[in-house]
Amino acid sequence: MLTANTDLKLVLDLVGVFVFALSGGLVGVRKRLDLVGVLVLAWVAGLGGGVMRDLLIGDVPPVGVSDWRLMLAACLAGLITFWLHPGVARISRFVRVLDAAGLAVFAVAGALKAVLFAVSPVTAVVVGVVTAVGGGVLRDVLVGQVPEVLRRELYAVPALLGALTVVLAARLEHLTSLVVWSAVVLVFIVRMTAVVLDLNAPQPLRTGDPP
Amino acid sequence: MLTANTDLKLVLDLVGVFVFALSGGLVGVRKRLDLVGVLVLAWVAGLGGGVMRDLLIGDVPPVGVSDWRLMLAACLAGLITFWLHPGVARISRFVRVLDAAGLAVFAVAGALKAVLFAVSPVTAVVVGVVTAVGGGVLRDVLVGQVPEVLRRELYAVPALLGALTVVLAARLEHLTSLVVWSAVVLVFIVRMTAVVLDLNAPQPLRTGDPP
Amino acid sequence: MLTANTDLKLVLDLVGVFVFALSGGLVGVRKRLDLVGVLVLAWVAGLGGGVMRDLLIGDVPPVGVSDWRLMLAACLAGLITFWLHPGVARISRFVRVLDAAGLAVFAVAGALKAVLFAVSPVTAVVVGVVTAVGGGVLRDVLVGQVPEVLRRELYAVPALLGALTVVLAARLEHLTSLVVWSAVVLVFIVRMTAVVLDLNAPQPLRTGDPP
Repeated sequence: MLTANTDLKLVLDLVGVFVFALSGGLVGVRKRLDLVGVLVLAWVAGLGGGVMRDLLIGDVPPVGVSDWRLMLAACLAGLITFWLHPGVARISRFVRVLDAAGLAVFAVAGALKAVLFAVSPVTAVVVGVVTAVGGGVLRDVLVGQVPEVLRRELYAVPALLGALTVVLAARLEHLTSLVVWSAVVLVFIVRMTAVVLDLNAPQPLRTGDPP
Repeated sequence: MLTANTDLKLVLDLVGVFVFALSGGLVGVRKRLDLVGVLVLAWVAGLGGGVMRDLLIGDVPPVGVSDWRLMLAACLAGLITFWLHPGVARISRFVRVLDAAGLAVFAVAGALKAVLFAVSPVTAVVVGVVTAVGGGVLRDVLVGQVPEVLRRELYAVPALLGALTVVLAARLEHLTSLVVWSAVVLVFIVRMTAVVLDLNAPQPLRTGDPP
Repeated sequence: MLTANTDLKLVLDLVGVFVFALSGGLVGVRKRLDLVGVLVLAWVAGLGGGVMRDLLIGDVPPVGVSDWRLMLAACLAGLITFWLHPGVARISRFVRVLDAAGLAVFAVAGALKAVLFAVSPVTAVVVGVVTAVGGGVLRDVLVGQVPEVLRRELYAVPALLGALTVVLAARLEHLTSLVVWSAVVLVFIVRMTAVVLDLNAPQPLRTGDPP
């Protein structure tokens, strides 16, 4: 079962890296970066969350600098946004769908890898969330934006749900492919619901203070 | 003696995490982030310095993603600032006192942990300072501010003094609880003196050049 | 041969740290930071790339917090820019030459260290580039600028060439001092050519979209 899960993790990783790298490339194009900048942002957005995960659980060198398949996926996504960006931007609604898919597979794949590394359950959940949101945070910090996860509608919460599902299933010794894919679908649906209904996390009460 | 120091380190860590997480939560509230953003900033400010420390000395997974007591302290501080922020802001002078306390316990606890990991003395000093200022740096970078430690009155210097004291005591094989607490008090007093007297590190000479 | 390369690596590291720390100190002076801020920026610019490299290949604690010779070089550069900054700024063209030298030695030294750690060739190349550009990225993020490597003329590309040369030579079991120095000179010449001719990486096509 472990082997199957490892294979599954590669597929999840490849999909996640590609769609997140598309988002990074698009941000780079919008900020008028050159080809190198667009590729770096694609790399950071696609692989940065995984690098954080691997540093946190001690799997060095991280796959983001050692697995040529993942790096190739990120580079491809960067080149595609660089050359086809008007096309990619036109389908930016579709990109939000892809982004929700990336969030789903990264949260689940991150928690899955942490579980395989036998860290404690609470660590596996946190690591799953970091895997899912870390790349986007690095992407935004590099171009001087406050990271979207800190201000946008529910983004980290579905990732948390997905990571929790995986870790719980592992604790119950019931970590099957079905459970893994169900967790991916769960995150995707919750995230898309938040996008469609424009759901947001609660904001602090306004006070009379100047900001 | 080592065991006692380990217990002592937990108390120092809990206090430091809580007060630094308060500072992170307040910054989040001021920037009008939502609940998730406020919690993330509390987590980053409270636990980020320790995560840097643990990555630098090779203790993975870092306590910031594995010790539920520390994570609970950071979450509590985030929730408190989220719900009670007008109250917390009104006592912002008190928060500066808490922040000085956090600086003191983190510099000392960081150096202490590095010493227990048997890194070289110079590394232990640097790691202590990074533990103390790292969380605040991440907090400020995430919301797009130049980190306070780079521009505010003396902040890193008291942390350096505290870390030096711990490392020196360890070299002289005199690392007792008394020495540890004295180092904490030393950092706190130096930092509060800098706050009260508005002491600053020297600035570069102005020149005729445009900035 | 390995020993010779290790010695060689130290010389390369010292030169790279010093010139990159000069660049960090200058940015700090320009941003009107105080002495502590200037020293931190010098440290980050000079040692940050190496810290990233060491975390990625698992060599902890990283030399950036453990090798006093490198830290001394970074501090010296910080103090020099702090006290002599009008002089340093006046020779800012010379600083660009130094920066090209730093890029060259860091890309080569980073790839060299990665090869000595027996990581895979593709990892060694990426790690070499990260070593060369990482410190500058951290420096710029800390003061709220979009990193120069993302937007300036060809910067990462010469680093890539240098890292590739070292890794290729190692694969062919031909990693002599002559090859290492040739790689350094290659990076330096390509980078200086880009500076002098104002060569840039291609930019994305403009579209009718607002930015």
